[in-house]
Amino acid sequence: MENYIKIYNDTKNKIRAYKYALWLISWDQETESPKKAIDYMSEQVSILSEELYNVESSIDYINAVTKLFENKEKLDEILALEIKKVYKSLDIVKKVPKEELLEYQKLQSKSATIWAHAKENDDFEYFLPTLEKIIEFNRKLTKYLETDELKGYDVLLDMYEEGMGVKEYDYFFDELKENLVPFVLNATQKKTKVSKKLTKGKFDAIRQKEFSEYITKVFAFDLEKGVLKESIHPFTSNVTSTDVRITTAYKENLLESSVFSTIHEIGHAIYEQQVDPKFDGTVLGAGASMGIHESQSRMYENMIARSYAFWELHYPKLQSIFKKELKGVSLLEFYQYVNIAKRSLIRTEADELTYPLHIMVRYELEKQLINGKLKVKDLPKKWRQYMSEYVGVRPKNDAEGVLQDIHWSQGSIGYFPTYALGSAYAAQIYHAMNSEINVESAIENNNITLINQWLKTHIHQYGASKTPKELMLLATQDKFDPKYYIEYLKRKFSY
Amino acid sequence: MENYIKIYNDTKNKIRAYKYALWLISWDQETESPKKAIDYMSEQVSILSEELYNVESSIDYINAVTKLFENKEKLDEILALEIKKVYKSLDIVKKVPKEELLEYQKLQSKSATIWAHAKENDDFEYFLPTLEKIIEFNRKLTKYLETDELKGYDVLLDMYEEGMGVKEYDYFFDELKENLVPFVLNATQKKTKVSKKLTKGKFDAIRQKEFSEYITKVFAFDLEKGVLKESIHPFTSNVTSTDVRITTAYKENLLESSVFSTIHEIGHAIYEQQVDPKFDGTVLGAGASMGIHESQSRMYENMIARSYAFWELHYPKLQSIFKKELKGVSLLEFYQYVNIAKRSLIRTEADELTYPLHIMVRYELEKQLINGKLKVKDLPKKWRQYMSEYVGVRPKNDAEGVLQDIHWSQGSIGYFPTYALGSAYAAQIYHAMNSEINVESAIENNNITLINQWLKTHIHQYGASKTPKELMLLATQDKFDPKYYIEYLKRKFSY
Repeated sequence: MENYIKIYNDTKNKIRAYKYALWLISWDQETESPKKAIDYMSEQVSILSEELYNVESSIDYINAVTKLFENKEKLDEILALEIKKVYKSLDIVKKVPKEELLEYQKLQSKSATIWAHAKENDDFEYFLPTLEKIIEFNRKLTKYLETDELKGYDVLLDMYEEGMGVKEYDYFFDELKENLVPFVLNATQKKTKVSKKLTKGKFDAIRQKEFSEYITKVFAFDLEKGVLKESIHPFTSNVTSTDVRITTAYKENLLESSVFSTIHEIGHAIYEQQVDPKFDGTVLGAGASMGIHESQSRMYENMIARSYAFWELHYPKLQSIFKKELKGVSLLEFYQYVNIAKRSLIRTEADELTYPLHIMVRYELEKQLINGKLKVKDLPKKWRQYMSEYVGVRPKNDAEGVLQDIHWSQGSIGYFPTYALGSAYAAQIYHAMNSEINVESAIENNNITLINQWLKTHIHQYGASKTPKELMLLATQDKFDPKYYIEYLKRKFSY
Repeated sequence: MENYIKIYNDTKNKIRAYKYALWLISWDQETESPKKAIDYMSEQVSILSEELYNVESSIDYINAVTKLFENKEKLDEILALEIKKVYKSLDIVKKVPKEELLEYQKLQSKSATIWAHAKENDDFEYFLPTLEKIIEFNRKLTKYLETDELKGYDVLLDMYEEGMGVKEYDYFFDELKENLVPFVLNATQKKTKVSKKLTKGKFDAIRQKEFSEYITKVFAFDLEKGVLKESIHPFTSNVTSTDVRITTAYKENLLESSVFSTIHEIGHAIYEQQVDPKFDGTVLGAGASMGIHESQSRMYENMIARSYAFWELHYPKLQSIFKKELKGVSLLEFYQYVNIAKRSLIRTEADELTYPLHIMVRYELEKQLINGKLKVKDLPKKWRQYMSEYVGVRPKNDAEGVLQDIHWSQGSIGYFPTYALGSAYAAQIYHAMNSEINVESAIENNNITLINQWLKTHIHQYGASKTPKELMLLATQDKFDPKYYIEYLKRKFSY
């Protein structure tokens, strides 16, 4: 056994180093590397990916992991958990032909840049061949990896959220449709008077940045273990608990965009920073799943930062930064403004209430792309159709339609549904947390570390050592139930 | 032969990918990565360096390079040049014990951060053990690599500038001492009246950045193949002609600091961007040597950007950015201010005339550190002594003394002398260029691309396919001679 453990550890260290290099290259590509460097970068990614592949697929390593898996009850607790996860993840190298996998990784290293160009120029055709290859690979992937329990789209969904397949998501979204859609239709008809200062104002990016930096302090996002930067689309990128990077995007005509996206990413980042260091450098040293991750970011963004208590405390700071721009805009007006529910085109700008409807569009489209009922070239049309049906608005072009999100360009299919799921988890977790600590009073007293601490104790510290199901049960004493989410939304938007 | 070429090419590609990863990690570390991420980063660097080492030192590869070297007259021109360079560079893996080399690379991955901390806190003792290890390794390196021609410090000097050893540098610096030192002593006694607006003003970093961005356009630094960022100490970091990154540092009490350091780094960067793409991805696809590199950066910084013609055209822009701060400061006053020769403490802030004296200090100290006449712990004292003797000023603390430069912390010993050499090369190259095109009129007409073009044709395009000696002869029709430099300085500073 000792020998297998040694092989496992040595290989793990190498894998980690390659993944670190590939992680940093990807971060650099999305935040900094010059346009014309992409070909050179992509060649290096291709070689490093192949080196990584060779290490991950070496017979000695697979053999060691298999042997350790078969004897997992003899291993210490952390190692046993690691091996369980690693054994499962080896499915890909064991079942997908090497050439296809490497070809796909090479494509992935370029595709986000191609997407960005297409979005900038509202040119879906430019992105089409790339997206077709991505969908084609993912369809093949579901064939390679299917099991008795998981078929087709299930395979992809389960990768992002263990235990959630088409059946479970269909139930979840049906619940939302039944209980929320009529409510939403009504709520979005309500007219709230909004100051033109908010809707037509221009908010200098440099001063928005100043507020973002203030926000990192409010939430105690540790900049000695993290970075705040800019990119086209905000994201969190982490490699270990001491290096967690977030980005935001400053839009001068949309003050609230950078404010809430910064807080959203901080939610992800604090989760990663609070994972128990004993898991550092193992596959357990990261968030448990995309859904749990999103529950944290959405809780920080929507439940904490869109509360009245939050702005009561922090609006004066925002006003002091934008003296002229926010002069005469009252706290109440601002609070109402950031909580308006309205039908809109852009998911990342959507309010809390209509947000899950945007996700339904993507879930439905992904399901059809993977089961073959929808061709990639027909996406823009179908996108417009579903947006009309579910959200009640129709994009005029693809830049504000099917091209708006980076995810598909990165090959993330099956990821979107976790966004809605995360909000639903968040409501349930918040409910449990609030029965132990007074969340609103923590916000009022500028004591968000109390919230951070509760989440650390009940969720963050465990990293990926527990499944989403285990975590929900542990943190909320209940299995996942969408009723908390529906109840929360109805209460909040019944003003 | 075909088989050796294949082994060579496959291995070369892998080496390039590892070097790319290590290059990016180092760039990230100096410009972005959070403080507490350093241990994790350093572990990954150590593993990747070992992987690189294993590839570079594989018997098959060394054998292939050796066989190709022995048959280099049968190879095509570019490959033959590559092999010549690679064969020489293999000396290190062939002669230095693996463990020592990897240990040293691991140290290098941390040492710049340790230095930065020491500098920030004026704490030489904190840096001392690290620097001792660096010097010790470099002394051993000279033993491992010495040849009949190159002994001791020569070995290190030759790594940065082929053909320049102690004998050649001693001659060069003696010429400068004899011909320049009395002149400098006199010139630095001259009192120029300077507006307090320049010496006591505060220049907002964000607006300095705006001017830096303007400058990139003036020099046609291609931002589609490059990056401009900030770091503690300005530097250029390049990996291929399509990815050339520079940094600058904005000091609010020193407007000219960011201006000239940006232009300096642009000089390096344009050189790299103009290397013939046929050398891309080979060891020839980069500047020829440190001295030639520095000749370009110094020419752009001092000979172009400190000229009256340059500021006649661009001072109005600077004044428009710093309206209040530069109100009433005339062009002539500004021009004189950026050309004042005075004895000062900080090399990077030193004027063109006293600059080589700062280098003499470092050359003398390095020589003694490597030949064993000076102990590392005695450096601060000896630094102060030489600064008094050569530059005529004495630092009050180590932060503005021996700790001011990043170079030694990165293990760059033998590098400094190329800075003075570069200025001397620059004067000779400028002289040749000016006999073919009217440089001053190109500056006046905002046509710096004409200068870029001349340098591309006569120097840049060749990358590292020629030696410094060959390039000087090709570009100036003369072998290197310090007289051009001495003459240039005397003429310029005899106002």
